Parts: sequence; structure tokens; C-alpha cells
Amino acid sequence: MTSKLRVAMVGGGRDAFIGAVHRHAMALDGRYELVAGALSSTPEKSLASGRDLGLARVHADWQALLTDELRRPADERVDLVVIVTPNHLHFEVARAFVDAGFHVACDKPLVTSSAQADELVQLVSARGTAFAVTYNYTGYPMVREARELVRSGVIGKVRKVVVEYHQGWLAGALESGSNKQSAWRTDPARSGPGGALGDIGTHAENLLHTVTGLGLEELCAELSSFGPGRQLDDDASLLLRLTGGARGVLLASQMAVGHENDLRLRVFGERGSLDWRQEEPNTLIHSPLDEAPRRLTRGSAVLSEAARRACRLPPGHPEGFIEAFANLYTELAADLHAGTRSGDYPRVEDGARGVRFIEAAVASQGRWVSLQP
Amino acid sequence: MTSKLRVAMVGGGRDAFIGAVHRHAMALDGRYELVAGALSSTPEKSLASGRDLGLARVHADWQALLTDELRRPADERVDLVVIVTPNHLHFEVARAFVDAGFHVACDKPLVTSSAQADELVQLVSARGTAFAVTYNYTGYPMVREARELVRSGVIGKVRKVVVEYHQGWLAGALESGSNKQSAWRTDPARSGPGGALGDIGTHAENLLHTVTGLGLEELCAELSSFGPGRQLDDDASLLLRLTGGARGVLLASQMAVGHENDLRLRVFGERGSLDWRQEEPNTLIHSPLDEAPRRLTRGSAVLSEAARRACRLPPGHPEGFIEAFANLYTELAADLHAGTRSGDYPRVEDGARGVRFIEAAVASQGRWVSLQP
Amino acid sequence: MTSKLRVAMVGGGRDAFIGAVHRHAMALDGRYELVAGALSSTPEKSLASGRDLGLARVHADWQALLTDELRRPADERVDLVVIVTPNHLHFEVARAFVDAGFHVACDKPLVTSSAQADELVQLVSARGTAFAVTYNYTGYPMVREARELVRSGVIGKVRKVVVEYHQGWLAGALESGSNKQSAWRTDPARSGPGGALGDIGTHAENLLHTVTGLGLEELCAELSSFGPGRQLDDDASLLLRLTGGARGVLLASQMAVGHENDLRLRVFGERGSLDWRQEEPNTLIHSPLDEAPRRLTRGSAVLSEAARRACRLPPGHPEGFIEAFANLYTELAADLHAGTRSGDYPRVEDGARGVRFIEAAVASQGRWVSLQP
Amino acid sequence: MTSKLRVAMVGGGRDAFIGAVHRHAMALDGRYELVAGALSSTPEKSLASGRDLGLARVHADWQALLTDELRRPADERVDLVVIVTPNHLHFEVARAFVDAGFHVACDKPLVTSSAQADELVQLVSARGTAFAVTYNYTGYPMVREARELVRSGVIGKVRKVVVEYHQGWLAGALESGSNKQSAWRTDPARSGPGGALGDIGTHAENLLHTVTGLGLEELCAELSSFGPGRQLDDDASLLLRLTGGARGVLLASQMAVGHENDLRLRVFGERGSLDWRQEEPNTLIHSPLDEAPRRLTRGSAVLSEAARRACRLPPGHPEGFIEAFANLYTELAADLHAGTRSGDYPRVEDGARGVRFIEAAVASQGRWVSLQP
Repeated sequence: MTSKLRVAMVGGGRDAFIGAVHRHAMALDGRYELVAGALSSTPEKSLASGRDLGLARVHADWQALLTDELRRPADERVDLVVIVTPNHLHFEVARAFVDAGFHVACDKPLVTSSAQADELVQLVSARGTAFAVTYNYTGYPMVREARELVRSGVIGKVRKVVVEYHQGWLAGALESGSNKQSAWRTDPARSGPGGALGDIGTHAENLLHTVTGLGLEELCAELSSFGPGRQLDDDASLLLRLTGGARGVLLASQMAVGHENDLRLRVFGERGSLDWRQEEPNTLIHSPLDEAPRRLTRGSAVLSEAARRACRLPPGHPEGFIEAFANLYTELAADLHAGTRSGDYPRVEDGARGVRFIEAAVASQGRWVSLQP
Repeated sequence: MTSKLRVAMVGGGRDAFIGAVHRHAMALDGRYELVAGALSSTPEKSLASGRDLGLARVHADWQALLTDELRRPADERVDLVVIVTPNHLHFEVARAFVDAGFHVACDKPLVTSSAQADELVQLVSARGTAFAVTYNYTGYPMVREARELVRSGVIGKVRKVVVEYHQGWLAGALESGSNKQSAWRTDPARSGPGGALGDIGTHAENLLHTVTGLGLEELCAELSSFGPGRQLDDDASLLLRLTGGARGVLLASQMAVGHENDLRLRVFGERGSLDWRQEEPNTLIHSPLDEAPRRLTRGSAVLSEAARRACRLPPGHPEGFIEAFANLYTELAADLHAGTRSGDYPRVEDGARGVRFIEAAVASQGRWVSLQP
Repeated sequence: MTSKLRVAMVGGGRDAFIGAVHRHAMALDGRYELVAGALSSTPEKSLASGRDLGLARVHADWQALLTDELRRPADERVDLVVIVTPNHLHFEVARAFVDAGFHVACDKPLVTSSAQADELVQLVSARGTAFAVTYNYTGYPMVREARELVRSGVIGKVRKVVVEYHQGWLAGALESGSNKQSAWRTDPARSGPGGALGDIGTHAENLLHTVTGLGLEELCAELSSFGPGRQLDDDASLLLRLTGGARGVLLASQMAVGHENDLRLRVFGERGSLDWRQEEPNTLIHSPLDEAPRRLTRGSAVLSEAARRACRLPPGHPEGFIEAFANLYTELAADLHAGTRSGDYPRVEDGARGVRFIEAAVASQGRWVSLQP
Repeated sequence: MTSKLRVAMVGGGRDAFIGAVHRHAMALDGRYELVAGALSSTPEKSLASGRDLGLARVHADWQALLTDELRRPADERVDLVVIVTPNHLHFEVARAFVDAGFHVACDKPLVTSSAQADELVQLVSARGTAFAVTYNYTGYPMVREARELVRSGVIGKVRKVVVEYHQGWLAGALESGSNKQSAWRTDPARSGPGGALGDIGTHAENLLHTVTGLGLEELCAELSSFGPGRQLDDDASLLLRLTGGARGVLLASQMAVGHENDLRLRVFGERGSLDWRQEEPNTLIHSPLDEAPRRLTRGSAVLSEAARRACRLPPGHPEGFIEAFANLYTELAADLHAGTRSGDYPRVEDGARGVRFIEAAVASQGRWVSLQP
């Protein structure tokens, strides 16, 4: 039993949704202990939120947190800084902590421009720190199984990928009320150039990339804002041209009434296909060419080592969203304890690719746009 | 009890798939009697196929059939000519019979160019004959329910439509073998300019139009041929701009391993959404904004009159493909008996719209193309 | 092409549900022609119903029909008599026509006592006529596939069978209104000793037997009547002891709100299991021991000959209730044309077994009751 | 923020499945800290397992743990003892700790005889300690929603309950190998009189009781052992007579190939029904009489307060098995901090009822057996 890793959190205070998920996920396997935080956008809320959580080191803002950590002896400093603020703050916080030599886990989208993304990628490389981007859907065991099935050639060369992420919670004009989640997500100043695109489209992009290994070469995007007075897209439909000649379709919508959090990936290859849905995450359908479809389930003995390693429970005992998140944190913990960088979690480069995806989609305006490899 | 309508069939002989479906569908409600035919592309096969079916009037080709009918007294002539040949023959056969005053039911896509389509539309109008296009999916009771729910305003103004039609049967190179269905569908000379686009994409287009009432204004199409040596598209992904500002996505693929005949329509409106799948045709999911989704089933008492009229059985007794086909034929029979043109089945104009859709998609080559209203 | 078989129908007039289904099913493949009928319980309704259908030979009652047929020359007589009256009339009608040498198709439950059943079985044997009982669920292609998979030993020795048939349409007191279907089904004088047991429980019993080949040795039944004032069971739960040591559970309910016509069969063997649901009849789940479950679909190339022979359409084009019915009639037509008795449809013995099942279940009163082999 | 509760665990060492689940569940919300343990059946494995977990107080057996705790000052003692040993040890461990005044959480089935159960119930009552039985399925938000819907009268008086729990992992003779889970579960000396009955049938019994509030009055059980040489039942089918005249069916099987952990509850009332499956735990189907079925989802705004309180995430982000477990522990933590006994988790009386259920089922041998109220 190794000792627990000490964690500081930036963002994730009262009223925040995703900060609590990160804390649940870190708690699940007992590898982390949250000890410090600058949890909100005002000093008062930061301090109150820290007291809610019983943290030992509570700060009014992230700059104070950084200063405090740097003056502590190295063996008292936190091992990891978790950044769960609205998007527009990711860059300066991440840059400051990486520059000071801290390991970082940051939510997606990584930053709000590809210039920022490039700078961050270079800085992480220069400092040699670990940097995880919490594209949590890659933590599901059956996503890992899908990735292994593509890599191993079971479905043959990939021809087409259809990834869709449908939500309905912004079908009304939620942001005109007091809903904190919708307020910053629909505000370009805090969210960056993408609305649904940044909030959920980047998850779809990353899932496509993680499972297939294919990159985007060109895209043609149709972005729409259906909510009255809404400045950012709440609906995005994209045609994709992928490396190696494959074609793709990516749909992301937050006004799709009747869908809750319906992320689905279909990969069609020359010799088979794969179908996975986040709302039934413990199942993956594998359809071999000319054979009956097979229903693969989390935990079963026929899965790959990579998928089985991500399971905590036997088949039929459903694991979910928190567990997927926890898988990323647990892999990261192993890296941090061992000083390695080989864990199975998304990196700063994955985050950077997501930022370039958003920029290209926003620039498309219905035309085809090329992406850098 | 009215007497049965006399029918002649062109195409649909030995080895044909869809001709037999038309015959089953006509038989189902006992409103039609097949009496004449020119059933295949060669005189020998035509005659042999007619004898298989025990037809009274068997002809070597459609010209002989037409000549024979015209020399009979009016009260002995067939009431309806059903055209189920490969696509490239639809036009001349349909034109000849309409011109001679016969009612016609023709399979889709209507013809292989919009010039032909326009000519046929005008001719039908001039002659005043009934002309049904067998877009059979519109015959499903729950498709009719979906159409009623849109018309009645239950889901509010339509914002987005996602229609997908995935098949996997052409994932291999089936046409290089002896498969008759794949041979003509992958041959531009017999199929017309669209591959998957014409064979199934037009069904998707027509379903979208039938349910929402919206027309296509612009489209941006990415057509691909993944099968080795294949000349026509076997995969199509389209972005659509619809009348009234709605957006759309249309996917049609015949290399999507793991899908059999997976036509699905989702309509997202301001106050709710609809979701229907052809492989579970007896169900329609209606998700009202801010309420629990409702599972509507064929035959239930809460449905509209239009949907209930298309049901033969109580809820839970699944009806399927043949019944949907039969609904079109039964509505047509009512028109033919009554001399009216008000039945609930697709018309020549619907067929013409499908042809223009194919042409525009083929012309797109990844760019946005406008369509005539 | 052989000529059509001439059919007379007893019962199935105006307001009847199942008579129309039989007519649709006979029409589907074009092998039958309905020419005569005594369609209702009163002379007036019988004559009116016959005229609705445009029948050539309409009679006031079945006795008149029988007399009329017998005085015609043999080559003008009907080839088949279809009995679709309420249950209590099956026996005398069937006995009279079989005794006169006619082939018969009769709805289930066959008769209302095992004494009647035994008499009818012996009479059919003595006369050598064909006698089909329309347990229509056995006509589904995937039920036939299930039967083949059991027979071929793919799932090993059968250990347990769970068959359930849940409907909700009698959850209220429907029979107190004008609903004709519920009126006779809840009346012991017309329905016989079983309510839900006879109406749907016998379907479940027959499905179990057809697929597994196992017989009932003992049963313990709990019958309930939840509808106010209802005399017959509307809910039945049975424990079964089957031949060969297998165990079984049979549930039949007509007050199960939320279920429409939910017949489901699960067969658990030593090396695998099977799962089929009538509301999604085109699919059969086969779970081999220690492997991923396989989703078998109607029409696919991996099916047995018996299953493929019952399909009219390729995979993904759903067939349903009428088609299953039609399969029985088509197999029967082949027997009648050929003078054979080898077709794939339920026989009078199957009907007799169902009657004994009802009697044993009614006699059980919560105790174990043995059945004759 | 209150301080964490100190926990000691008995059982749950290396190779154990459920001990790790309890630890994950306690970790999830950060309310517990595991500090002491006697984790296995031999001193060596106990000590090694404790070191694996980095526990401060590791003991060779539970007696040493008890002695050690009692000699510590009260403010250093553990707040809770979690018992996750094989069934046969529950009684003496639980009795000793309760007698010494400790709060206890114990896995199910509570003990192996109703005499033990009664003694334990009385002792808990006498000592006034908290005692939770980890029937974890009651922790699912949608199970709580189901309970609220029954209590509030939405589905009317309950008429019938069908609860089934199907697993397939003991279809082969797993216990003849080295599988530790199957070894003790199939051994009467360690498992008690019930096999599948005790391991999963009690979960089904408790789920039925929790949701409907109904008790068992009589049961008729058919227990079978299909595994070669197996001494305990691996398959159980029961007819139930419930308080208030309702009827029930309870199925529990561990040789049902193709099912993983398929616990399903259906409750049929006079005005509606409920349907919940553990493998899709975030959904509950509510079918009102004469209306379209409603699909209720975890986290949605239409749920009851009791259900919403058990959710950590918004709709569409699936929660699972661990979260359900955690809900029990979190409710218990609230009781322990506040000194109350009002939390929403199963009690020792629930465990005792489960033991009486097993005894009655084993005694039934196919006959009806009455249970004490």
C-alpha cells in the first residue's frame, strides 16, 4: 500500500457540478487525498467552499494557493493540481502550475485557442510534468475494449466513424434563469468559441480519436444556435475526412429534447463494426462481417487485458460515470507514484487536439477546412 | 364488398425480391388480383415467371402487355400497372402506361434524372391518372402518428432532423458474385447516378419530408465508394438546410456492417422530439420538453385517427414490412374504386423530389448545393 | 402454380378480431380462397357478415354450411374448414366436419374438456383428415430457429424453461362494457374452465412444448381473479415439472398493466440458453456458455433451413403476427395439395395437450397435480 | 464538514469480492475511514490483507480486533464494524460486536437460521445500536422512486409482484476449480441452508418487500440443484401469497446462462405497473392504466425527493452498483453522526425476514408453507 497522493483543486466550489465528480472519482480507489483548494471565483466563496470540504489549506484564489505551495518544503507540497474552473481560466492556471513544476489534471476543453494549446504542450514537454485531460469517457472499460478491437485488426481497416453526442437540457432558454451550469457554457467570454462544440463536441472528437487512432484532416461544420438570443452554437453537425481515407460524421447537440447524455460511437471497418453508448456503458456490440452480432459486457472473461484492468466489479454489476472518471485518476496515480508517464489517460496533446478541432469547426462556416496533422 | 382490382405487373419475376413483396402486400387485404404481367428482362424469363404465378395474361415484354391491354374492352383492362423493374426502366414504362391512361404504382427512385421526373409529373397531371410511388416506410402506422404529431404542433417548430439509413449487406464485394440484387444496384447504367443514395437515401429523404413537411433548400454531400472497384456510392453523409431554417443530417450507407435495414428518424422541435426506427416499427418515442418520454405503440387508443386507420391488429401484435406496403396499396385501392385522388400514399411528385435529391447530392461533391423548391 | 384451395369459415364475422387475422394470413401467400361461411352466432349476423366479405356461399349457421357442402359434388366442395368461433363451439363444429371427412383448421384452445379432446383426436385419426390448431406463435421463423437449436443439441440438455405471457387489457373491468372480445373470454360458458389460462396460457404451454419437445409431468398452479366480479382467472402462475427432470415456470396474466402482448420464452440448457420475445419476433438471443451472447435475426444466412423457409423477406425488414399465422396456413396448404401430413404446423394432438393443461391447472388449486404423458 | 467515521472490517481480505465493493462504497462520499481489520479466515492472510490496505490496526482474527477496540478509550474506538465474511460467521461476529455496543453493517443473508436472526434482532433492540444490512439494491435511486410511487398510490392497490434474479455463473461446475466465490457459496457449512436462495433470492425478497411494503404469508418453493454434485440449490422458483391478497412469483437462479446479474422487479397494481432492472438501474418504466408508458430516469426533475436525494449526477450520466452501495453507507453515516436511527437503509429486521424466507423456502419442498407475519 502506497501512501495517498496530496491534491489541490482549483475551481469546483459550491454549485459546481464537475468538481464534485472529480472528488468522488479520486475517493473511489483511495489513492488521493484532497488537502488544498482555491475553489471559486470570489475569495468569499472560495473560503466557504473550502471549509465545506474540511480542507486544511484553503485559499482565496489560485495565485495564493500557488504561492503557499511553493514556500512549503517539497515533501509537503501537493502531488497534483486539479483544474475544474470554467474554460477561460484553464490556460493561465495550468500554465502557472506547470511552469512551477506541478503535475496537473485539467478538465476539457483544454484551453480556448490553439495558440494557448501549443504553448501549454511545449511547456509540459519542457518541464516534464504529468498532465492529464479528463476526457472521462475514455475511462470506460468498454471504450478501452473498443480501442483494443480496432488496434488488433479485428474489424479491419476503418472506413467510417459516426459519433454523436445528444443532450436536450438547453432546448429551452435555461441560461436566462439562475442555472449556473448553463450560464457560463453559453457565454463566449467564459466558454471560448465553441458552445455545444466545446462542451460535448470535444468529448466526441476525443472518443473518435482514442478508439480509432485516426486524426482529422478536413472538416465541414454547420453550427446553429436555436436558443433565443444564444451567442454560441447549441447544435453542431460535421462531416469529417480522417487520416487514411476514412470518413466521419460528428453530431453534437444540446437542444435535442429526449436525449439526456447520449454519447454514441459507431466504427465501421472492412470486417466488422463496433457500437457503444455511454448511457449503457457496460455493453459493446461487435458485429463481425457475415456473423451474428456479439454483445460484449464489462467484466466478462472474453475481454482484453486493458478493458479488464479498468473493471472493479464482475459482469452484470453496472459501473458508471464516476468509475470511468476514477479510472483516469487511478492510472494517473500510478504514474505519479512511479515517476512514469505511461498510464492510460488523455494527455495535454489530446487536449490541444480538441482545441484545434473547435477552432476549425467554428472557422468552417459550412465550408471544408483543413486541420494540421 | 367491392370487387377486386385487376393488376398488371412489369418486372418482379424469378429472383426479384421486391416484386414478391408487392404481391404479398396486394394480397393482404384482398383488394387486388394480379392478372397480367411482363415480369422479366428477357422474353423467356418473363413467360416462365408468369407461369410460376399462374397469371392469365403473360407477356414477353411490357410493350406486348400494353398492346394487349389496349385492344381489350375497357371493362376487361387492368385497373393498375405496378412497375418493379430496375430503376433505369421506370421512366419509359411509366410514361407509356400513363400516357395510355393507366393508373400506375411505381417503385422508387422514380426515374434516373430530374428531366424525366418533370416530364412524368406533367404527364400524370395531364392524364389525371393515379400514380403512387411505393415509399413503403410511409405506410407504417407509427410514421403516420409521427406526421400527425408534427402537424398538430405537439413538438413545436422543428429545429433539426436526423435521418439515417444503415445497411451492411454491401460491406463485402457482393456484386462480384452472382447476387442479382447487388449487381444492378451497383451498376450506374441500371441504377442511375446514386448507389446507396438512390436505393435507400431516397427513402430517408422521403421519410423526412413526409413526417416534417419540410423541403430541402441546400445540401452538402460526401459520397464514398468503399467496396473495391465499385462505381457508385455505398456510403453517403449529407448536411441539409431545410425550409423554415431547420437543419438536417442524412446518412445512408450500405457498408455499415452490423446494421441490417436500420432506418431511423429523429425530429427535434422546440417543445419535444420524436424517434422512430424501422426495425422496431410498432413503437414511436415521444419526448415532451421537461417530461418523461412516452412510448407510443401501434394500435393503442391514444393514437391519431390516421395512425389507427393503418392498423390491422391490436397493440403488441407486431405488424411489419408487408403491412406497411399493404397500407399504401389499400389506400390506393380506395382511390381507384372511388375515382378519387385523396388517399394516403406517396405520389409522382414525391418521386420527382427524390430524383432531384439524388442529383443534387451527386453534384455536391462536398460543396453546398441549392435545390429548387 | 397450383390452384387456390377453397375455404369455408365458421365464426369470424363482424366485430370478431381473430377471424380477420386468419383471412389476412390466408391471403398473404395466395394459396387460399375463402368461398363459404357461417360467420356468426345469429342467422342475421351470419348472412350480413358473409355479404360483407363477398362470399359466394353464405349460410345462417354451420349446420346449413355442412349440409350444403355435402350435397355438392366432391370437386366443388371446400378443401378446408376454418373454425374461429368462441371456444365452447369448437368441439361440436370440429367433430361434425371431421366426421364428414373435411380438413379443419381450428383456433385454440382446441375444446373445453379433455374428454372432448380425446374424442376429437381419435376421430381425426380414424378419418385421416388434416387438422391444424392455429397456435400461431409457432409460425415465427425465430421460434423455429429456437426449436432447431434445442434439437441440434447446441444448448445441451434443457434444465429450466421460463415462459411468460403478460397482457394488460383486462386490468380494468372491460367486460362490463360493450367489448365483445372481453365478454366471451371472461364467461365460463363460452370460454371453458380457463380465463387467461385458456386464452393465452395455452399459447405459452404450446410454445414451451414446441421449442423444447418436453412434456408436462406435474404442475402446481395459482389462479387468481383480480377483476371485480370476474369468474375466470385473469392471472395464473404455475410451477412445472417437465419430462427428463427439467423444471419450468409459466406465467399468464391479462391484468399486467404496461404489457401489451408480451409472450417471452427462455430456455436454459447445460451449454447455453435461448431468449425470444413475441413483441420483437425477428430476433433470438443465443447465449453460449462462457461466450458472448449472439443476436440471431430473421432472414440471416446463419439460420437453419426450417427457419429460413418461414421467411419472406431479408434481414432487417420486420415480419410480424400475420406472417406467423400465414406460415401455418402455407404449410397446411402444401399438405392439402400433396395429400401429405408432414407440414410444420400444430396438430389436433397439440390442441388436446393444451386442453389437458388447462384442466390440470384449474384442478391444481395451489397443489401439485400430475399429468398423463 | 463533519469528521470521518472510523471503520473496522471483518472479512473482505485478499480474493474477496464484496469486501472491496464495501470499501469503494465507503470511500465514494468521503464519510468513512477504514482504520482496523481482521480481514480473513487465517491469521496469516488477515495480517497480509491488512497490510495491503495500509490499515493502522491489523488483527489476526475478529476476537483480537474486538479486544483491542474495547481497551481503547471511547473516543479512539471505531464508529462502525463492517461484517463481510461468508454467511456462517455473520452471527457470532455480529452478536459479539453488538453486545459490546458497536454499530454494525452486515452483509446478507443476515445469519443462517431464524433462531439466530431473532436473537440478533432482540440484542440490537436491547443495545440500541445501529445495524444496517447491506441489501444494496435498495440503494438505487430508481428503486426508491418505485417505492415512492407505490406508497403514494400512483399504481393503486398492488395485485401481483414478479421478481426474478437470474445469474449464469454457476451453470458449469465452477466450485470444482479454484474459484473462491463459488466454493463457499455452494457449501452448506459456510453458506447456510440456501444456495441461490440465500445468495440472491434474499435480495429479491428484500427488493419486493422494500418497494411494495408487502409481507410474505405463504410460499410454495421448488428448489433444484443442476450442477453435478452440488448440495445446495442453484435454481429456485417460488409462488408467493402476500399480505393484502396480492400474489407473487420469485425466481432465483445461478445456472441461467446468458444472464449476468439480472435482477428485475415488476409490480402490477390496479391503476398501473412498475418495471425496474438492475442491469439498467438508471431507468424505471411506469405504465399508467390506459396511457402510454413513461420512462423515468435517475436524476430527472419529475422524481420524488427520496429518489433525488440518492443521486450524485444529472440524468444520462449512469450511476451504478457502487453508488447504490454508497447510498446505504451515506445514510448510515448520517445516523451515526447524529445519533439517530431514521436513515434510509435496511435494518437487522430486514435481515431477519430474509433468513425466515430462506428457511421457509427450504422447508417447502414443493408444498405451501406459511410464514410468521
